[in-house]
Amino acid sequence: MRRKPLSSAACPIARSLDVIGDWWSLLLVRDALRGSTRFSEFQKSLGVSKNILTRRLRALVEQGVLETAPADGTAYQEYRLTEKGRRLHHVLVALGQWGLENMPPPPGVPRMALVDREKREPVPRLQVRAADGRLLEPGDTMMLRME
Amino acid sequence: MRRKPLSSAACPIARSLDVIGDWWSLLLVRDALRGSTRFSEFQKSLGVSKNILTRRLRALVEQGVLETAPADGTAYQEYRLTEKGRRLHHVLVALGQWGLENMPPPPGVPRMALVDREKREPVPRLQVRAADGRLLEPGDTMMLRME
Repeated sequence: MRRKPLSSAACPIARSLDVIGDWWSLLLVRDALRGSTRFSEFQKSLGVSKNILTRRLRALVEQGVLETAPADGTAYQEYRLTEKGRRLHHVLVALGQWGLENMPPPPGVPRMALVDREKREPVPRLQVRAADGRLLEPGDTMMLRME
Repeated sequence: MRRKPLSSAACPIARSLDVIGDWWSLLLVRDALRGSTRFSEFQKSLGVSKNILTRRLRALVEQGVLETAPADGTAYQEYRLTEKGRRLHHVLVALGQWGLENMPPPPGVPRMALVDREKREPVPRLQVRAADGRLLEPGDTMMLRME
């Protein structure tokens, strides 16, 4: 089903979901954050046909999340995250932490943790805090119209 | 297209996306976090048919994100977030902040901000920090297999 266009929604969550509201878009961003740049790397990770992957990568390029560049010394193109794409890091960390807490791996699948590369220690859970440092629970935040 | 099953993926980001990897699932969670409990409230917000909304709400109940309860004094059912669902708050905050930073509203659509309900001040951007407080950029984190 073609989804409802969300790009002109007043809610910024909805506008974000217009760009990254399909499971594959965030998996491609995840792979790019881990260093994937080649079409073949993304294809191996997602396991989809070339046609479908071409369309999906193009959509992320059109949205300014990825950009293409010639790969050094070859006729191939590379896909690289733009700054806008790199700023999705905290969204993926939030999703990964939610998965670790709430979706245990099935038997036989190893348990993974998101760690700080330098110290190899788990990254503490993201916390929503007010400007003065108070921890904010779901009912403590709201969207407000800015004049 | 039926999507690839991600529930048994080793990556917790992929397992999360198995549950909330479609744009509408996070919009329903958003509405529930804002206090919506009635079918009619979700329908008004999403603008989809009753059939489709019934299927989507049922999917979130099956995944343990929402639960149903009889609404006080009526024959209607209410949908409420479970603890697992409430824990998506930081994912939605991350998405909303990304939208505010990267997806400006089109002309005529008001600019919104996510604020702390008590002080009415913008919620500072979520930061990915190591256990010792260092700010972590995209290349500074990795998934590690736990033994």
